[in-house]
Amino acid sequence: MNQIHYQTVRVDLAARSYDVEIGTKNLSHLRAILDAFLNVQHVVILTDANVAPLYAENIAEHLAAHDLTVDMMIIEPGEESKSIASAECLWEKLLEIGTDRQSVMLAVGGGVVGDLAGFIAATYARGIRFFQIPTTLLAQVDSSVGGKVGVNLSGGKNMVGAFYQPLGVLIDTKTLDTLDESQYLAGLGEVVKYGVSLDAELFELLENNIDRVKQRNHALLTSIVARCCRIKADVVEKDELETLGLRAKLNYGHTFAHAYETLSGYGTLLHGLAVAIGLVDAARLARKLDRVNDSFVERQITVNEQLGLPVRYDKTREEEMIDLMTHDKKSVRGSLRFILPTKIGQCELVTEISPEIVKETLCSALS
Amino acid sequence: MNQIHYQTVRVDLAARSYDVEIGTKNLSHLRAILDAFLNVQHVVILTDANVAPLYAENIAEHLAAHDLTVDMMIIEPGEESKSIASAECLWEKLLEIGTDRQSVMLAVGGGVVGDLAGFIAATYARGIRFFQIPTTLLAQVDSSVGGKVGVNLSGGKNMVGAFYQPLGVLIDTKTLDTLDESQYLAGLGEVVKYGVSLDAELFELLENNIDRVKQRNHALLTSIVARCCRIKADVVEKDELETLGLRAKLNYGHTFAHAYETLSGYGTLLHGLAVAIGLVDAARLARKLDRVNDSFVERQITVNEQLGLPVRYDKTREEEMIDLMTHDKKSVRGSLRFILPTKIGQCELVTEISPEIVKETLCSALS
Repeated sequence: MNQIHYQTVRVDLAARSYDVEIGTKNLSHLRAILDAFLNVQHVVILTDANVAPLYAENIAEHLAAHDLTVDMMIIEPGEESKSIASAECLWEKLLEIGTDRQSVMLAVGGGVVGDLAGFIAATYARGIRFFQIPTTLLAQVDSSVGGKVGVNLSGGKNMVGAFYQPLGVLIDTKTLDTLDESQYLAGLGEVVKYGVSLDAELFELLENNIDRVKQRNHALLTSIVARCCRIKADVVEKDELETLGLRAKLNYGHTFAHAYETLSGYGTLLHGLAVAIGLVDAARLARKLDRVNDSFVERQITVNEQLGLPVRYDKTREEEMIDLMTHDKKSVRGSLRFILPTKIGQCELVTEISPEIVKETLCSALS
Repeated sequence: MNQIHYQTVRVDLAARSYDVEIGTKNLSHLRAILDAFLNVQHVVILTDANVAPLYAENIAEHLAAHDLTVDMMIIEPGEESKSIASAECLWEKLLEIGTDRQSVMLAVGGGVVGDLAGFIAATYARGIRFFQIPTTLLAQVDSSVGGKVGVNLSGGKNMVGAFYQPLGVLIDTKTLDTLDESQYLAGLGEVVKYGVSLDAELFELLENNIDRVKQRNHALLTSIVARCCRIKADVVEKDELETLGLRAKLNYGHTFAHAYETLSGYGTLLHGLAVAIGLVDAARLARKLDRVNDSFVERQITVNEQLGLPVRYDKTREEEMIDLMTHDKKSVRGSLRFILPTKIGQCELVTEISPEIVKETLCSALS
């Protein structure tokens, strides 16, 4: 895999086509943003209290220096901000500051900020333009491509939302230097997911570069992030609104992950770490159904352990897990279905899986 | 104009094409609905406490008799239900009853029910299918075509929403028999708007059939409703997302109307009655700007008076009006713009109108 410092991933969709610009220290010039903001006078930055002093305030100053009117809205960090209550506060605030259809919403932060900003932008005045600067690894490889935006309900993650594409995305892998370890690991959970479910070469790259990945090598990260964005764009381009079942492959490991997140309470367990456990569960379930061999499961567990990712959820409560999984919005009226692997880099949708075998898998993970 | 009892208006849009079936007593067989619901097992009916016993309960029984699982959600009648708080309750309720992406939301009621149900459907699980049975004249001629859905913020009407097209629409003009007089008049406000701004023949039909319109003649109403739906569909087909300015013509009289509604508090003044006053204001403003002659203004006032529609807002507070109009989401960063008539059946967007001349128009309306 070629390792260069700047890459562009073009996302071609019916609703809108846009570029994801990936690089190191490319945030400092913001050319891509200003290009995209041609004919824009008013920008509303949504960020959180952690990211504001690190990046968002600089960006605001930079944009203001280029004669834009800039408003900043700062939310509390964490999954709890992805709520209807937050959304309502922000909608009212947008109205108060005179936001109209010519304004642009700029998300600077992780997945929570991006999902919330995107949902607000999709629904305020029936839709205003939206640009993303994801600053966490998870947001860079996942939520920045594909247009899934939304908030949580008390009973289910991402249950309210839309498909809403951004004007563009700017990714600076330098922002990963300030991520705390658990946030970085959470992003790696999604990176491993891309490899194991859709890209064997990426999975091998991770296996062969454990130390450089852990050291957050910028050049390697630029390549990895661009590769993940390309994989996701390929899938999303074929199944923009998740109607063909293709896009479901991106949710490999996620049915387990969502249940773990709900069980532990939003914000307690990071999404990417829940996904990392879900990858092992999917491998074990596929093994139980004789769809993969032992080596597949071992490679999955080994890469998780070497990277420092979790391999099991300590407080597994299998009855509640199954109950939660039947309420996941990707279930079909109660029947259990999973995206399961066939080999490294390949997966498929498997339907009508009995709750018993899922239960057994979860129990055996504890032993 | 041909007056037949059944008409179909086809709406062809990029996002989705669908039929609006208009007739008298066509609700009783529900064929159109069941056709559209092919492969549907679960229907959630959203209605209000007035419409539930009149129509929605019968519809629910009918669908249940055709082996569908039917859930019913009943809101309080009135504009106050079109809130984020209502939306949140309904989203949580949908999750609780196991609504998934295969479920269909069926709106049975007026504009509030349709707008709220559409918004809920657009955003629950990032979008579930949606079918409309509008039971008020206003909903039949306006909100049932075009896909504008949404809720109000405390500071602005329809400020949160989406463009979301239904699977189909079934209109039974027989349901207008049970409308109270003010609701019927409110619908006529929008009907007159279509005539004066976009269809001279419709305007003349109204002028020549005042008594039959007031008697709610079913055959005439089927023709009128179908004609209004066709006018709206023509505009919406050319400007689905309101990006070209064409769709703005449907908002003739609405900048005034929205301000009146906000001033009087949501729900106090019916939307269609506010529009009726807005039509007179638009005529007066156009006269003041020398864009129409005296006869235009007189015909507008006469048709309103003969139909029993209001021609002025008694508590006009012009300073607040202008302040509110600059916050309307169709304004461009503070400058005033209006859709104004050129002659009966024709209108255009006029920009950069001075607040003073608007103020003078509103003051003169009081004299």
